[in-house]
Amino acid sequence: ERDKYENNNVAGVVTGLAWTRVGGDILFIESILSKGKGTLSITGNLGKVMKESATIAMEYIKSNAKTFGINPEVFDNYNVHIHVPEGATPKDGPSAGITMLTSLVSLFTQRKVKKNLAMTGEITLRGKVLPVGGIKEKILAAKRARIKEIILCDENKRDINEINPEYLKGLEFHYVSDMSEVVNIALTNTKVKNAKTL
Amino acid sequence: ERDKYENNNVAGVVTGLAWTRVGGDILFIESILSKGKGTLSITGNLGKVMKESATIAMEYIKSNAKTFGINPEVFDNYNVHIHVPEGATPKDGPSAGITMLTSLVSLFTQRKVKKNLAMTGEITLRGKVLPVGGIKEKILAAKRARIKEIILCDENKRDINEINPEYLKGLEFHYVSDMSEVVNIALTNTKVKNAKTL
Amino acid sequence: ERDKYENNNVAGVVTGLAWTRVGGDILFIESILSKGKGTLSITGNLGKVMKESATIAMEYIKSNAKTFGINPEVFDNYNVHIHVPEGATPKDGPSAGITMLTSLVSLFTQRKVKKNLAMTGEITLRGKVLPVGGIKEKILAAKRARIKEIILCDENKRDINEINPEYLKGLEFHYVSDMSEVVNIALTNTKVKNAKTL
Amino acid sequence: ERDKYENNNVAGVVTGLAWTRVGGDILFIESILSKGKGTLSITGNLGKVMKESATIAMEYIKSNAKTFGINPEVFDNYNVHIHVPEGATPKDGPSAGITMLTSLVSLFTQRKVKKNLAMTGEITLRGKVLPVGGIKEKILAAKRARIKEIILCDENKRDINEINPEYLKGLEFHYVSDMSEVVNIALTNTKVKNAKTL
Amino acid sequence: ERDKYENNNVAGVVTGLAWTRVGGDILFIESILSKGKGTLSITGNLGKVMKESATIAMEYIKSNAKTFGINPEVFDNYNVHIHVPEGATPKDGPSAGITMLTSLVSLFTQRKVKKNLAMTGEITLRGKVLPVGGIKEKILAAKRARIKEIILCDENKRDINEINPEYLKGLEFHYVSDMSEVVNIALTNTKVKNAKTL
Amino acid sequence: ERDKYENNNVAGVVTGLAWTRVGGDILFIESILSKGKGTLSITGNLGKVMKESATIAMEYIKSNAKTFGINPEVFDNYNVHIHVPEGATPKDGPSAGITMLTSLVSLFTQRKVKKNLAMTGEITLRGKVLPVGGIKEKILAAKRARIKEIILCDENKRDINEINPEYLKGLEFHYVSDMSEVVNIALTNTKVKNAKTL
Ligand SMILES: [Ca+2]
Ligand SMILES: [Ca+2]
Ligand SMILES: [Ca+2]
Ligand SMILES: [Ca+2]
Ligand SMILES: [Ca+2]
Ligand SMILES: [Ca+2]
Ligand SMILES: [Ca+2]
Ligand SMILES: [Ca+2]
Ligand SMILES: [Ca+2]
Ligand SMILES: [Ca+2]
Ligand SMILES: [Ca+2]
Ligand SMILES: [Ca+2]
Repeated sequence: ERDKYENNNVAGVVTGLAWTRVGGDILFIESILSKGKGTLSITGNLGKVMKESATIAMEYIKSNAKTFGINPEVFDNYNVHIHVPEGATPKDGPSAGITMLTSLVSLFTQRKVKKNLAMTGEITLRGKVLPVGGIKEKILAAKRARIKEIILCDENKRDINEINPEYLKGLEFHYVSDMSEVVNIALTNTKVKNAKTL
Repeated sequence: ERDKYENNNVAGVVTGLAWTRVGGDILFIESILSKGKGTLSITGNLGKVMKESATIAMEYIKSNAKTFGINPEVFDNYNVHIHVPEGATPKDGPSAGITMLTSLVSLFTQRKVKKNLAMTGEITLRGKVLPVGGIKEKILAAKRARIKEIILCDENKRDINEINPEYLKGLEFHYVSDMSEVVNIALTNTKVKNAKTL
Repeated sequence: ERDKYENNNVAGVVTGLAWTRVGGDILFIESILSKGKGTLSITGNLGKVMKESATIAMEYIKSNAKTFGINPEVFDNYNVHIHVPEGATPKDGPSAGITMLTSLVSLFTQRKVKKNLAMTGEITLRGKVLPVGGIKEKILAAKRARIKEIILCDENKRDINEINPEYLKGLEFHYVSDMSEVVNIALTNTKVKNAKTL
Repeated sequence: ERDKYENNNVAGVVTGLAWTRVGGDILFIESILSKGKGTLSITGNLGKVMKESATIAMEYIKSNAKTFGINPEVFDNYNVHIHVPEGATPKDGPSAGITMLTSLVSLFTQRKVKKNLAMTGEITLRGKVLPVGGIKEKILAAKRARIKEIILCDENKRDINEINPEYLKGLEFHYVSDMSEVVNIALTNTKVKNAKTL
Repeated sequence: ERDKYENNNVAGVVTGLAWTRVGGDILFIESILSKGKGTLSITGNLGKVMKESATIAMEYIKSNAKTFGINPEVFDNYNVHIHVPEGATPKDGPSAGITMLTSLVSLFTQRKVKKNLAMTGEITLRGKVLPVGGIKEKILAAKRARIKEIILCDENKRDINEINPEYLKGLEFHYVSDMSEVVNIALTNTKVKNAKTL
Repeated sequence: ERDKYENNNVAGVVTGLAWTRVGGDILFIESILSKGKGTLSITGNLGKVMKESATIAMEYIKSNAKTFGINPEVFDNYNVHIHVPEGATPKDGPSAGITMLTSLVSLFTQRKVKKNLAMTGEITLRGKVLPVGGIKEKILAAKRARIKEIILCDENKRDINEINPEYLKGLEFHYVSDMSEVVNIALTNTKVKNAKTL
């Protein structure tokens, strides 16, 4: 499955970690732009809380456009669509927040996403990263998918400390408390191939 | 039933494979344009996930109009209606995604759809094709309907390998991982009779 | 009851055949125009699938206006209201599709509907007529209501063949596979009295 | 209760007959105009079918404005509000249709409603009056409320014939099949006091 | 609790009487204006019927602006918000109708509300006041809250007559049948302090 | 957890006290502005009553902009987003009202919020503060989070009086009855660092 996804030539595709009824799993956040009037659409069989995460991420970016080097006119002239593949699986909860934010910043800046990186964490409107549950199962799923680096809220460090170090071999952890850290770690300074001019 | 449908003189009609409570079945995706302001309507007694597939297909085409040779002004000046016949049967799930995409590309380009071809697969916003379930039942239904060629996600090849080869006689399979492959296989380079000028 | 309805001096009133919990029944599709901005409203205690039939009929007509001799500006300057009387009875299913289409074509062309005619069949977006259920009960109801001619999908012919010919005396059947056939059989080339100029 | 309501100095107030869980009852349809953009609002704790009756009545009037002597510009420049008092009682069903229509015609023409008159009947889009249920209970309620004249669908005559004539003393019945008859019976040719100029 | 509320220096705050699962209670209707385009918003954990009362009150005032001395342009240039405090308690039913109307007239005219006054009654679109239930419990709640005057529908007089006169000491009742009476009793001819110029 | 939040360098972040199924807790209200047309969006897995609190707070501020020193044009030119973090927890009830109001006033004035302060109370449209439940549990949660000052409705003083004074050591209480008092206590007269010019 990883072969299919590890390609990071497209902006807006970021790997998240999810906790499902059958254990941990990786998921992908995709986002695209199309000429329009600034609407935000969200698909992927998502529940209310996960849709709210997308709204929060979008509003945070609008409110901090300058920080991210985004021309605010983009928000009025393009529609944004965020999708989480595998529509057969219902998905919910706040833990994809930082993944959605990273996807949108990549989309609006056309910056390349770092390879072999996954993340999980709730976002807040003022740019904080909050801890989330299911860390152990998510880490195991990340390993199976050959992820090398993982971004977590620093308050989730205690969950990592409780995992047998054997299982953590080959994984590098980044503990963050603020969205700016997430973006700095996850996005390279290179633009994607055929980057759109926005 | 096939007699009625195999005619491919109209753009936007594509054959899909569905998995229902009573086994596999073929279904048809129809789409039409009418002068308007760019709305998308979707009918056919569809569930939430299947409606989302239509949205994803539409957004993907809008975002990649140039690749498909579509003038983006069409999106503002026409309404699109996607319908899945047999309204008495509730339908849901992501597996009609690539069929909907193919229907819409045919509609916007007025290219003829290949005859005796069916397909099943989920689509993602960045143009990937994902595997779907119920492959065995769908293949049997395709044979009954005298389909000759079938498009599947390459990750569904393992499901085909588990089927008794006897049942697969007379069927040609195309395994794909990207939407561009689907469109290349499914759409001919000939326009339909009385093609609309868009 | 027939006395009341057989009058065909008004455009847009067409007789359909319904299958209800208490057996077959006839129903009437009425549609009217009023000056407006092109909205479509639908009443009559209808379920989701039956409302979708109205949308499909309307979209089909918009997309094929020229074929029906309809000036497409009408769609922008008039509101359409479709109603199915007897609001106390919940109604659903796709089988009123061709009746709704016929009603709308009569309305937009002001052509008179043939007398003593009833019909039942699902419509598709590309103009096909699909078979529907409950044929035996519907035919008996048509006879009780002194209907003389009935339009059915040709795939429903097998259902008629299973009925005791005794019951079919005095009924003429038209088997169709395409909407254009329905319209040709059901609408006369005469305009209704006091036809509106659209 | 009648004292309060028999006053017919205001346009748009018409007496209907309802059939509730606790027997027959009279109800009042009130409608008013306010400067606006043509919206229709409906209150009174009404179910879906009863709200549809209001829509049907409104659409019928719009489509036949000339017949009723109504300037169609009124529909664009005024909002209409229809209300059925006694909000604590849920109300539904199609039988208030002709009462709503009469209320709206009185409102738009400012013609006075006849005194001591009540009515019950479903309306259709092309102006037909359909029979309704609960006739016996409704008649008894009308008598208790000192109603003198009652408008019914002519197909409800059979229900009246089954009632002990003793109970019908002092009641005059009007049997109708078309809305124009309802309006002719119910509305006087006098305008209400302080009639609005529309 | 009364201390907090008896202040009538603000326009639009009127005391109503409610009937809840735990007996009678007083409630307050508050309304405010803000510059806008004429929207009406309603909060306070209210059910459908109580929200309809707010709509009816608003429409009645719009339709009778002249009578109340209100410049109708106000309706287009201000948004109205009606709120019923104590959001933890669900509230429903039509009996706050006359209280809402009084609140809105006070708001639009900036007239002071009479002190120590409470009211309960349904309103109709043509300005009638209808009787409501729970009178005994409401009266006792009013006494506990040191209310001195109460407005009721004249048809509720019979409910007062059934109450032990002992309980009614110190209460003055106003029986009304029309909204104009309510407004005349409840609103003084003095404007509130710092009255807004509308 | 407090370390993360006590920073008050950003406008619009205020600490509230909540009462959940597992006892008292602190929560944070965040709000941000982005260029727009004046919409209000609300997230955080909130129920109907809590969303209404946000609407009430917003309307109150709009109606009293001058008092708060806010240029009313801001309301037309910016969108407001209010969020309550920890999306996994459903939240409802009116007790965050004064916290939301304080957050919004801080946002629109860019005034700094006092440190180590928390609050709980319902708001009304005319600026009153109403008492709320769960005071004991909320106070204990505030202590655990090292809160130093707490704002409560003066009618909640009786709840504090019932708590063992031992538990209240190190806490200072402010009892209020009006929103203006809340704002005066909670907001400093200093602007936040990098205050936006609105
Ligand atoms: Ca997976
Ligand atoms: Ca930290
Ligand atoms: Ca089938
Ligand atoms: Ca592949
Ligand atoms: Ca019937
Ligand atoms: Ca055929
Ligand atoms: Ca009654
Ligand atoms: Ca008749
Ligand atoms: Ca109370
Ligand atoms: Ca009276
Ligand atoms: Ca917490
Ligand atoms: Ca006080």
